[in-house]
Amino acid sequence: MSGTQVFSDQPVVVAAPGKQVLIDFWGAVGLQDVNLIEQSMRSAAEACGATVLQVNLHEFGPGCGITGAAILAESHITIHTWPEIEYAALDVFMCGNCDPSRAIEPLVRFFKPTDMKVNEVERGQR
Amino acid sequence: MSGTQVFSDQPVVVAAPGKQVLIDFWGAVGLQDVNLIEQSMRSAAEACGATVLQVNLHEFGPGCGITGAAILAESHITIHTWPEIEYAALDVFMCGNCDPSRAIEPLVRFFKPTDMKVNEVERGQR
Repeated sequence: MSGTQVFSDQPVVVAAPGKQVLIDFWGAVGLQDVNLIEQSMRSAAEACGATVLQVNLHEFGPGCGITGAAILAESHITIHTWPEIEYAALDVFMCGNCDPSRAIEPLVRFFKPTDMKVNEVERGQR
Repeated sequence: MSGTQVFSDQPVVVAAPGKQVLIDFWGAVGLQDVNLIEQSMRSAAEACGATVLQVNLHEFGPGCGITGAAILAESHITIHTWPEIEYAALDVFMCGNCDPSRAIEPLVRFFKPTDMKVNEVERGQR
């Protein structure tokens, strides 16, 4: 993605690396299920039309959370879960033409939160 | 980290999972150097008092960027670089008592940006 800004009659192409959504889920389920979490990240990437290069997840042990990242050709999806408070923090960062907000619907379908917050941030904009 | 909120005379402990800094660097160097990038992430984690569990980086090839994530016991550091426009997007997410803003100084030391933007976001706050 790129846009054009004009300074002193000089057209300058300004790159727009990407857009990011920061998602907070409360009252969520599946937060200790590493297979569900990997599936959710792959579904979220697919919904955005993104390509998964790696999924790396770390389990902190029985009763504890899971933390990790999917590395995408288009940037990343990260997740950190706190099952003890039914809370998860997810980020979806996409460059190019991929829209990270398309990840929200599949993530909601997997984690069934009772409450959520989404912040959208433009990256690479001065 | 936790705080206390009161609803209807009922004290309720509200967990505060973490804090995140979103860092944009322009005019940065080293954006194709995978060893420098891994070192920068390890130094940033160390500055925050965080524990690195994994560092996973993907190189897109000669002249292209690098993308990846350090998975921490305290959450994550991610990086995506666009060397062709001397731009990098970094995120540092820390839970617990770790302060992600301490990562900024070592990251600046490694990537020597001429311009930068930092957004700080509280995670897990309704």
